[in-house]
Amino acid sequence: LKPSFLNTDVSDTYPNKPLESFMAEPITDKQILQKNAPNSYQARMEIFILKLQKQFCQSLEHFEVEQNSNSRFLIDRWTREDGHGGGITCVLQDGEVFEKAGVNISVVHGKLPVQAIEQMRARGHQFTARNVPLDFFVAGISSVIHPRNPHVPTIHFNYRYFEVTDVDGKVHWCGTDLTPYYLNENDCKHFHSALKKSCDKYDLSFYPKYKKWCDDYFNISYRSNERRGIGGIFFDDFNDAKQEDCFNFVKSCANTVIPSYIPVVQNNYQRTYTAQERDWQLLRRGRYAEFNLVLDRGTKFGFQTPGARIESILMSLPPLAKWKYGLDLKEDSPEMKLMKVLKQPKEWV
Amino acid sequence: LKPSFLNTDVSDTYPNKPLESFMAEPITDKQILQKNAPNSYQARMEIFILKLQKQFCQSLEHFEVEQNSNSRFLIDRWTREDGHGGGITCVLQDGEVFEKAGVNISVVHGKLPVQAIEQMRARGHQFTARNVPLDFFVAGISSVIHPRNPHVPTIHFNYRYFEVTDVDGKVHWCGTDLTPYYLNENDCKHFHSALKKSCDKYDLSFYPKYKKWCDDYFNISYRSNERRGIGGIFFDDFNDAKQEDCFNFVKSCANTVIPSYIPVVQNNYQRTYTAQERDWQLLRRGRYAEFNLVLDRGTKFGFQTPGARIESILMSLPPLAKWKYGLDLKEDSPEMKLMKVLKQPKEWV
Repeated sequence: LKPSFLNTDVSDTYPNKPLESFMAEPITDKQILQKNAPNSYQARMEIFILKLQKQFCQSLEHFEVEQNSNSRFLIDRWTREDGHGGGITCVLQDGEVFEKAGVNISVVHGKLPVQAIEQMRARGHQFTARNVPLDFFVAGISSVIHPRNPHVPTIHFNYRYFEVTDVDGKVHWCGTDLTPYYLNENDCKHFHSALKKSCDKYDLSFYPKYKKWCDDYFNISYRSNERRGIGGIFFDDFNDAKQEDCFNFVKSCANTVIPSYIPVVQNNYQRTYTAQERDWQLLRRGRYAEFNLVLDRGTKFGFQTPGARIESILMSLPPLAKWKYGLDLKEDSPEMKLMKVLKQPKEWV
Repeated sequence: LKPSFLNTDVSDTYPNKPLESFMAEPITDKQILQKNAPNSYQARMEIFILKLQKQFCQSLEHFEVEQNSNSRFLIDRWTREDGHGGGITCVLQDGEVFEKAGVNISVVHGKLPVQAIEQMRARGHQFTARNVPLDFFVAGISSVIHPRNPHVPTIHFNYRYFEVTDVDGKVHWCGTDLTPYYLNENDCKHFHSALKKSCDKYDLSFYPKYKKWCDDYFNISYRSNERRGIGGIFFDDFNDAKQEDCFNFVKSCANTVIPSYIPVVQNNYQRTYTAQERDWQLLRRGRYAEFNLVLDRGTKFGFQTPGARIESILMSLPPLAKWKYGLDLKEDSPEMKLMKVLKQPKEWV
């Protein structure tokens, strides 16, 4: 669970040994980041996601090391052509344990177009400015992990801090959700319990609210409301409380990714599986690709954003996926057991 | 090319032996269809697509027979829950030659919502009616063929007759396009020549115009304008000429599917291929899935249509597809040779 080499510093202060704490150089100039860190949420968020990226990548690579595989994360540090930020895309492909694991951070600033401001206003944000672009800043981490073994679930998470220079302009878009191929009830309970615990510390109403939001969001509506997976928590435009409380809540959720997921990998990655189970995994991955391409708001936003790094956005797509016409599931099969939960989400804790 | 058992009757008159001419019972009652056939475009189109479906399915099955494979088309005749028509979905899966071949016809009628009418008006259609739903009828055939061998291209075609009961309400949406994985210039020339020939018989301006429309339509814009394949012809809202000429032109294009494609399959389906070539095919199929899910108007229309048969619409998705982060093509490779044409479409005839 906690390999000895794993850096477990989850704070948002600039580390003493940045080379060991980050996958690559920060996007923001190191000196500026270090100087701003104590008092700026922008800097604290960047440092936090840099550290979380490193820790999560290490946690995953550890399994490859254990299996004597040579697969390691490829690190792509990129900057936007307009100079307004960049990101670090880390991808491990064709591993023994992980067929494709992507962990991406990006830190981008610029002018938010009037249209985007009006969309936020329509969702309830208060802006004093009218018809002028506003400065924005966004720093986020997003990740999708596609394990090879169909008994290991896919995880996705996305934690993002978004700031618009105007009244009421600091929001978080966030979530973690799990997509198993076969239902292991203990794993589902472990995963949801961990998320609930990190929510309950802040507000007892958060977990039920964000759990439902997650079930509603990851819904393939045109497939008779088939959910992508067993959910988790999801929220956007989160700025209910004091800024420091918001930030701490989001950090707490993000820091739950490793303890909620890694034990589930540990429990299942060495299980044997049949060709039929692999087939089912690939068919479910087809649905995963459908959700991401057709319905995911983040992906759609990326398609419409000039200068967006499509290769980093579509890192989420499965390494291999199947589609079959007229799939017929047997009533008492493990595949049908999962399908029933996807059609009718249940409470795990 | 023309197996002896292949029914080659491409007329739109009711056949003497319907059981041998259609894959299943027509959607419209047989007696009514037969009675209306001589004077109704609705009936003539239904008969025509029923025959074309049968002939195309037979042409494809012939290859499976030759390879001693047991794969045959599964025939799903379905009717809409509201009683307003239905379709015949024919799918061959896991064949020796065709990994997934879908040939679908549908015949649907009902009331066209005001919003859809306004969208057509915005595209230039003249309707006298305002703010009332209008009766519509649509009969179409659509098909996507995913061969197993990466040296055999994927073909897609879609020929549709759409009638709205009002002035100027009879239109065709149509097209055929080819998606090779490796560029065989002779095949590309053969394919485009056949389409050009069927266009030139009606109007010399049609092929250049509809070839360009096809290149512009099957464009994955967010992938730096990478085309899905080498194109073909594409047009919608076609009702330039006299109704009988329109109908004959569309039939002529649709009847070009078999002679333009089957010889290309014949030339290549027994070629050997490497694991690397198979891999490239699967990666290109990932792009195919992206286009269909993100950009194709027909698919998007289906997602938004209550009661649409999603399983028939998404029949177009590849049986197996791959996505890889950071694909790097060698400058002089056959893969790069294809990519250059996808980025910069060329004239084949």
